[in-house]
Amino acid sequence: MSWSSQEARLAERPTGRPDASTWDITTVEVPDPEPGQFLVKVDLISLDPAMRGWLNDVRSYIPPVGVGEVMRAFTSGEVVASQHPDFAVGDAVSGVLGVREYALSDGKGVTKLDLDVAPAATWLGALGMPGMTAYFGLEDVGRAQPGETVLVSAAAGAVGSTVVQLAKAKGCRVIGVAGGPEKVAWLRELGCDEAIDRREGNLVRQVRRAAPDGVDVYFDNVGGELLDAALANLARGARIAICGAIASYNEESLPPGPSRYMSLLVFRATMQGFVVFDYEDRYPEAVAAIARLVDQGQFVATETTLVGGVAGFPEALLGLFDGVNTGKLLLQA
Amino acid sequence: MSWSSQEARLAERPTGRPDASTWDITTVEVPDPEPGQFLVKVDLISLDPAMRGWLNDVRSYIPPVGVGEVMRAFTSGEVVASQHPDFAVGDAVSGVLGVREYALSDGKGVTKLDLDVAPAATWLGALGMPGMTAYFGLEDVGRAQPGETVLVSAAAGAVGSTVVQLAKAKGCRVIGVAGGPEKVAWLRELGCDEAIDRREGNLVRQVRRAAPDGVDVYFDNVGGELLDAALANLARGARIAICGAIASYNEESLPPGPSRYMSLLVFRATMQGFVVFDYEDRYPEAVAAIARLVDQGQFVATETTLVGGVAGFPEALLGLFDGVNTGKLLLQA
Repeated sequence: MSWSSQEARLAERPTGRPDASTWDITTVEVPDPEPGQFLVKVDLISLDPAMRGWLNDVRSYIPPVGVGEVMRAFTSGEVVASQHPDFAVGDAVSGVLGVREYALSDGKGVTKLDLDVAPAATWLGALGMPGMTAYFGLEDVGRAQPGETVLVSAAAGAVGSTVVQLAKAKGCRVIGVAGGPEKVAWLRELGCDEAIDRREGNLVRQVRRAAPDGVDVYFDNVGGELLDAALANLARGARIAICGAIASYNEESLPPGPSRYMSLLVFRATMQGFVVFDYEDRYPEAVAAIARLVDQGQFVATETTLVGGVAGFPEALLGLFDGVNTGKLLLQA
Repeated sequence: MSWSSQEARLAERPTGRPDASTWDITTVEVPDPEPGQFLVKVDLISLDPAMRGWLNDVRSYIPPVGVGEVMRAFTSGEVVASQHPDFAVGDAVSGVLGVREYALSDGKGVTKLDLDVAPAATWLGALGMPGMTAYFGLEDVGRAQPGETVLVSAAAGAVGSTVVQLAKAKGCRVIGVAGGPEKVAWLRELGCDEAIDRREGNLVRQVRRAAPDGVDVYFDNVGGELLDAALANLARGARIAICGAIASYNEESLPPGPSRYMSLLVFRATMQGFVVFDYEDRYPEAVAAIARLVDQGQFVATETTLVGGVAGFPEALLGLFDGVNTGKLLLQA
């Protein structure tokens, strides 16, 4: 028997914003699993800003997706056939299985999900990579302490909304930045002490007003103008955790860097980049901490799930960069 | 009795490069010291890149020099009259006494110099602020370890030439960057394993060739294009110590920041600014360490001393930005 599976392959590397010519949506026949393998019916595909970087043929923290290869993606799904001793039909799993409907796996990098703890969508969000990123960026890189002021960009996104809630739970004063009045209103519901609409401009002034004593920790998901606005408003000894730069991921050339980086000297501050995969050994610590907050009602995991299947992936990815989501953005496979 | 003293006052704040209209060179009569005071005949005036920043009316790590005030400067000199219990006529001293020939002091911030350890010029260089800056930037901010690759910009200058020698003494592989073939040749004499002439351009490629396994510590005195070249060639876990940005100090507007700052993420690297005054409690540790290397013949203190007196200060300061000096740049008062 075989399984008909739609998949999204990288047809050609985009310059700037990906478009229709970037992707090749095609259907293949996936065979039954051989001994040591199992087959997953993918239910949810995770859309992550990092995906844009994976399309560039440059040296980075992970090799790029090759032209002709299935697009790399975190997914969740259900085992529908198995010749693997550790995975049984009906198991809920997550792993980097790609933008496809059916995936064969030997189990490497695939985790069984406990759906009693949280639904699969949350295992891709607050309890998945975005949650891990938020936790280690805030705790280890940002070293946020109770009472400190934490500024978070893309605060309505998957990572940002987790940072906001973790920082509030720690007793920090939290300033969230997002695009548009709806997201700003949502950030206030989420517990932000101050919420800034980046579309209103004047970011240096907006950050100064929200953080008159300066920013102790800036969790940076966007780069661009907001990074400069944060640099202009640091507290002494501030830490900037560089998690991403979504504002520039679709630029065709390197955008100007942060003009105000010499603020690092004036404020004796640190700017540090990190990659969540380095913390793999400590994921259980982060999952336990976030799950405990969920249990205590101090944390709300939020996801936006798009329909459209694998064929809807190209548009869904652009939606991510346009900020259509609140919380984690997912696509039903 | 009174003492006729030439002094350089800030006449107006420069935009861009300081020029004749920036300064007011004038002669005043300095009275004899009153009880609790002493009078210093200034012999040497230190020329430091930080001076340019002190002319800008902006919030920084130290208040700006006020219009009409004597220009702030580190100096060394000799006590020529005293009504202070701790300072006697004939004492050699250093302190922030300003660009002037004679200075009254109450002793605050003034240190007696032991000329048996080193001449006054060295107390303003390798054993003064530049030396302290080099030591704490390399040890505490850069956290250089034996065997690591250390890249140093403005390596022929006061701070840079000290960093080079301290790093070599630690057992690091040291790459120095300076402007022009004479300085590059001098850097090799100083012990640099590789020396780069920034005027030859292609800095990304030049740094890559000199550090094929990446840069572990970048001690940045200049900013600009070289900072980007360093970012492009980091080793994993690299540390960038932001000490200064002399390349842009005379710019009229903020220059573009480091475009490649996202390398901090790729290489899990840290960029940290520091101000030497924060390490004041530990200056004795640094002085002892550098003096010991001098004693052991592992360190050569180098100074370039200009003549021209206080009236020559405007030109001498521009010489600093044009890189006329090897090692510490001083002006005879």
